[in-house]
Amino acid sequence: MFQPNRIVALTTDFGISGSYVGAMRGAVLSRCTVARLVDITHQIPPQDVSEAARVLEAAAPYFPQGTVHLVVVDPGVGTRRREVVVSAGGQVFVGPDNGVLCRVSSRLGLDGAWAIEHESLRSDQVSSTFHGRDIFGPTAGCIANGFRPADVGPPIVLVEPPESLTLPYRDGPVMVGAVESVDHFGNILTNISVEQLPYSRPLVQVAEFEIQRWVDSYGQAEPADVVALTSSEGMLEIAQSNGNAAATLGVNRGAVVRVRPRGVREP
Amino acid sequence: MFQPNRIVALTTDFGISGSYVGAMRGAVLSRCTVARLVDITHQIPPQDVSEAARVLEAAAPYFPQGTVHLVVVDPGVGTRRREVVVSAGGQVFVGPDNGVLCRVSSRLGLDGAWAIEHESLRSDQVSSTFHGRDIFGPTAGCIANGFRPADVGPPIVLVEPPESLTLPYRDGPVMVGAVESVDHFGNILTNISVEQLPYSRPLVQVAEFEIQRWVDSYGQAEPADVVALTSSEGMLEIAQSNGNAAATLGVNRGAVVRVRPRGVREP
Amino acid sequence: MFQPNRIVALTTDFGISGSYVGAMRGAVLSRCTVARLVDITHQIPPQDVSEAARVLEAAAPYFPQGTVHLVVVDPGVGTRRREVVVSAGGQVFVGPDNGVLCRVSSRLGLDGAWAIEHESLRSDQVSSTFHGRDIFGPTAGCIANGFRPADVGPPIVLVEPPESLTLPYRDGPVMVGAVESVDHFGNILTNISVEQLPYSRPLVQVAEFEIQRWVDSYGQAEPADVVALTSSEGMLEIAQSNGNAAATLGVNRGAVVRVRPRGVREP
Repeated sequence: MFQPNRIVALTTDFGISGSYVGAMRGAVLSRCTVARLVDITHQIPPQDVSEAARVLEAAAPYFPQGTVHLVVVDPGVGTRRREVVVSAGGQVFVGPDNGVLCRVSSRLGLDGAWAIEHESLRSDQVSSTFHGRDIFGPTAGCIANGFRPADVGPPIVLVEPPESLTLPYRDGPVMVGAVESVDHFGNILTNISVEQLPYSRPLVQVAEFEIQRWVDSYGQAEPADVVALTSSEGMLEIAQSNGNAAATLGVNRGAVVRVRPRGVREP
Repeated sequence: MFQPNRIVALTTDFGISGSYVGAMRGAVLSRCTVARLVDITHQIPPQDVSEAARVLEAAAPYFPQGTVHLVVVDPGVGTRRREVVVSAGGQVFVGPDNGVLCRVSSRLGLDGAWAIEHESLRSDQVSSTFHGRDIFGPTAGCIANGFRPADVGPPIVLVEPPESLTLPYRDGPVMVGAVESVDHFGNILTNISVEQLPYSRPLVQVAEFEIQRWVDSYGQAEPADVVALTSSEGMLEIAQSNGNAAATLGVNRGAVVRVRPRGVREP
Repeated sequence: MFQPNRIVALTTDFGISGSYVGAMRGAVLSRCTVARLVDITHQIPPQDVSEAARVLEAAAPYFPQGTVHLVVVDPGVGTRRREVVVSAGGQVFVGPDNGVLCRVSSRLGLDGAWAIEHESLRSDQVSSTFHGRDIFGPTAGCIANGFRPADVGPPIVLVEPPESLTLPYRDGPVMVGAVESVDHFGNILTNISVEQLPYSRPLVQVAEFEIQRWVDSYGQAEPADVVALTSSEGMLEIAQSNGNAAATLGVNRGAVVRVRPRGVREP
């Protein structure tokens, strides 16, 4: 049974200016005054469900059991998409049923999902445009305060997210994948798992560049060198020592990444 | 009587880089170690008292009774403007007496206002430039810790804020107002209350554009459509589906908004 | 003996987008579920150890005794630089041994420093690129939870930071220093202590500009006036009323600042 630890972790695309994050925090605290709010981020690009799913999967597993995650990246607010509560790995996730919770619940092990229908979980006046404040925030607060996840409404099956990136596939000896994100330092994060590569320290091609050198950590590279390494999530990462790899290479999310063993030429 | 719940909510124009927000948070916590600090925002445009007043009114009502709000947008720091504590609707607001607290205290119902004069509320050395750290932060911490608002100093009457926007007025069948803010998504927030309009779903003119279509939520609009809707605060809002309405229309705060019933032509 | 107050204050160069800050917060909370996390800032310029040291010295002294500071500006992650815990003035600092903790521990009074070696303080799998999540965060959480700082590993002597700015020196009657930082408002912060100047309200030269007027607070200046004043940290500051002094003067960090008594001409 889920035992709330009073931590409520926030992931949104609201940005940090204006009143939206503040109003939602207030709505959580109004249902659970002793909640300890922490941010994962509010800087998900507007309405980018895929990036929110990626960030959540990378951060949420490090939180303790009992944490309630409030996840609001919700381009379909006010339409028929459902509001859901998901239980996975001893943590609970509250958000829209638009696929944003699939990656993290798959990673942690999905225990159950329920549509939010209980009347007590909504604010008295629910707007058509701000369910973070009027539905998701109050629900997260109530669950942090002891409301049982399975009591929020009927069990449901989560919708799958639309796939937006090339998933890694094999083309002969070449593994093909994509740039999934660029981090604050300009490091290029791909969707290719280093552990699952059948060869070690391969040649990496992104845009028209070939990266030959692998390092274990940023500090091993010479200044301005562009290198490959294993990201903190275990994925292929491309970085530039004392520089911004994405800017230097002109690479953005979605760019194709090709990986091949040394000594193998592409036709 | 005010019963603090240990929540201290922060609204400032300090930004999030540098040491200022951190030093102020430390000053609060030094007076109330168990305080739970949450941000409304630190991204109020520098010294923009009007925008701070708007954001505070939009967010603070969602917080539970017993919350202490620390509000520091303070172009007059070091001059003769007073430092005040305001009680309204079971919450307390600490900040400069420059009008920033008027909207929220009017909305929640003003219970009392006092000048901060008690010596114990100031740090030992009060700088001339950073009262957030030296006066407002310590005062907010003390009140969160149980210091009674009415004991901070003599009761006062709050100064009124300088009015910077055209307040809505009627021009025959036309209601004239202004753009009050542009949010993180590029949605245009006006100062025209939809509920108080004498007609429903009117034509909306902003800059040289006329918006004809109303929707209930963003998801009802076709991609790239610019539409009118009721904001989460009950006001006329102009949005673009999958887009940034303010950028598309070239509209900023202060722009005039004209609203008229369908079938009525302007001369 | 250090008595943790459950406050963990964060200073990093991670930025606020993406998953990094969230994952690190989770790692802290996994070791101390009741920790109250607060941010100093995550906007230290990437890998700028000097600016992190400045910000930490300006903010940390305002926190109560018992606070644990988690400081991760770590260009050498994955190399041989050590991980350290520093005790100073009743607070504890956890971070890389790259000089970032020297200013604050000197200001507060260094009580001790230890290398982080105890196995229980590391996560099961330590990455080569993200010690904030895998070593520093867990260590900070454990100390907030009662783990004794002196038990983390052997006592060490901290490395000194590389000096990057001209330290103030005297050139006859002239005091020469440098711009140390530009704040969110565009105010220019120098490394010249006003208190230690042998004369009051001197002429200030920065870039090709000479500032003649001193004020006590921003509000005393006429709009657009560029003035000198004492910063909230007691240092020489150059500000522009209702403006951005750094942008107006075209001045950045590292710019030389010359100060001389009135009536003295430079040769």
